[in-house]
Amino acid sequence: MLRVLIDCFGGDHSPQANVDGALTALSRFEDLQLILTGDETSVQECLSGKSYDASRIEIVHAPEVIGCDEKPIDAVRLKKESSMMKAIRMLRDDDSISAMVSTGSTGALVAAALTRIGRVRGIIRPAFCPILPTMDGGRVGICDSGANVEVTAGMLRQFAIMSSLYMEHVYGVPKPRIALLNVGKEAEKGDEIHQQAYNLLSDTPEINFVGNMESRDLLSGRYDVVVADGFSGNVLVKTTEGTALELLKKLKKDIYSRTLYKLGALLMKKMFADEKEFMNYQNYGGSVLLGTSKTIVKGHGSSKATSVAKCIEQAYLMERSALAAKTEELILKYEHYED
Amino acid sequence: MLRVLIDCFGGDHSPQANVDGALTALSRFEDLQLILTGDETSVQECLSGKSYDASRIEIVHAPEVIGCDEKPIDAVRLKKESSMMKAIRMLRDDDSISAMVSTGSTGALVAAALTRIGRVRGIIRPAFCPILPTMDGGRVGICDSGANVEVTAGMLRQFAIMSSLYMEHVYGVPKPRIALLNVGKEAEKGDEIHQQAYNLLSDTPEINFVGNMESRDLLSGRYDVVVADGFSGNVLVKTTEGTALELLKKLKKDIYSRTLYKLGALLMKKMFADEKEFMNYQNYGGSVLLGTSKTIVKGHGSSKATSVAKCIEQAYLMERSALAAKTEELILKYEHYED
Repeated sequence: MLRVLIDCFGGDHSPQANVDGALTALSRFEDLQLILTGDETSVQECLSGKSYDASRIEIVHAPEVIGCDEKPIDAVRLKKESSMMKAIRMLRDDDSISAMVSTGSTGALVAAALTRIGRVRGIIRPAFCPILPTMDGGRVGICDSGANVEVTAGMLRQFAIMSSLYMEHVYGVPKPRIALLNVGKEAEKGDEIHQQAYNLLSDTPEINFVGNMESRDLLSGRYDVVVADGFSGNVLVKTTEGTALELLKKLKKDIYSRTLYKLGALLMKKMFADEKEFMNYQNYGGSVLLGTSKTIVKGHGSSKATSVAKCIEQAYLMERSALAAKTEELILKYEHYED
Repeated sequence: MLRVLIDCFGGDHSPQANVDGALTALSRFEDLQLILTGDETSVQECLSGKSYDASRIEIVHAPEVIGCDEKPIDAVRLKKESSMMKAIRMLRDDDSISAMVSTGSTGALVAAALTRIGRVRGIIRPAFCPILPTMDGGRVGICDSGANVEVTAGMLRQFAIMSSLYMEHVYGVPKPRIALLNVGKEAEKGDEIHQQAYNLLSDTPEINFVGNMESRDLLSGRYDVVVADGFSGNVLVKTTEGTALELLKKLKKDIYSRTLYKLGALLMKKMFADEKEFMNYQNYGGSVLLGTSKTIVKGHGSSKATSVAKCIEQAYLMERSALAAKTEELILKYEHYED
């Protein structure tokens, strides 16, 4: 049995979406056991009337909720009875539990992961790696997308190693093509940290480093992972999502501006629905946190049930592929580490 | 008369697009005089058969061209007879010339501007400020978009002051709403430099600082200028352009996949043409370099005649609004400066 914690609160559609997503994942994997944290009565209400294997679901009462506007450090320290912090503590203390999924405050989750959960041996800092769809029907990971706003070249190499193994073992991409986000293609572009990182990545034969990437090529399908400092990685991901959403909104508005367009759009109804589905990040799961000793997956705050189920699937696959152990093995080739 | 230099080489459609753009601008402004630099024979060929006021056009022969893949510093030092470097030298030495437009290598232009052209008194480093269209029909400037991959908080405040004056005096935006690009809205987000910049911007009453902006809101129309370090500003601009282009490409491909969609798209032909035009950066001119003592406008490498004409218009308006003097006045309120 693989035991995974689901933080049922903190998202826009919590707790119903989290509970529904949990049940979907439960029915998909027979060797999965889920522990739901959150206000027991509310969680019970969400479960009532649904059919599921009750022997594989457990509820742990946690009356408090961490809001998105709370200071992460304060939330971690003071809200001990929150659904997120209870899950974090159980993840830390219970060896039979291997992973956790949350749609709550990103800041609090990162702070909790850093202070309460151990890292893979040799890892300097864990990093987020969300996935975006590319225009040729593939996908691209971005690592880091915001856990570390300041980085060193050595950290960037670790992000590359972690995310390469993730794409290979969880998504089955052979020899993932790894690029470094930079302001130009040439090796000497960017600040000193990025120049050093370029050299370090070139000197890491275990990964398939293909050079610098300019951000306009993110969706081209030419890269499997883009390595970035958390600041510009965050800008990269959010700008892509924002531009796609704003463009769709504009198209919709323009279509409604003339009867002729409405008529045309009627013929293309299925196509527009497909485009919307294609750009719907709910279909691509969450940001996994790479480099922690136990698996943590962060779903979008606006996650619906599909997205939560996808996050649980990601956690499941990460555990089943023994990603942390594989990461440790490769990282320790490059990092001196003493217990 | 306002005298402006046009570097006629280095762009994808040079020299024809540059010459055509020059003629368009020439016919638009009666008090404009243009000096075209580049291979004289080629430029003459581009001019032949066109009707224009020859008394306001001058050609300066420059046989060399700086390529986009050349090392900026080497290009500046070694290609003295290039169309770009000849223009830069004339801009520096001739007091009757006030501005320059180029569609050539960005790196070489920045290096030349930094080493050959003076700065507005008090300015630490000049910064690029390109303009993007927002979804409500407005526009937003991004400063810096790549001239400075490393910044200090003080530089970010200077970018804010320069770009605020630019939006106000060249685009007529009263009290431009200035935001700071960051990974979240709260004042304490980002690294130390961005946290310090947040405080500095809050303490600058001459600008209308409205707080941090997350990159997904760039096109929302809620901001007139986004202040950024050159690295993440570059990611912001290129990701927006890249995502829009990739989406349009995908739409086009999907439309051609079914007859029904082709039929629908036929009814929406004008709309799609409008969208394409809307997203065509050629219509929004170039990146002006703010903070240099003489005006420099950098057009996109792929600029066509419309875009070149727009760049010249920007240079014209910057000079006519005495932007550099206004900038100096405000900057010297905050910076100690000795000649």
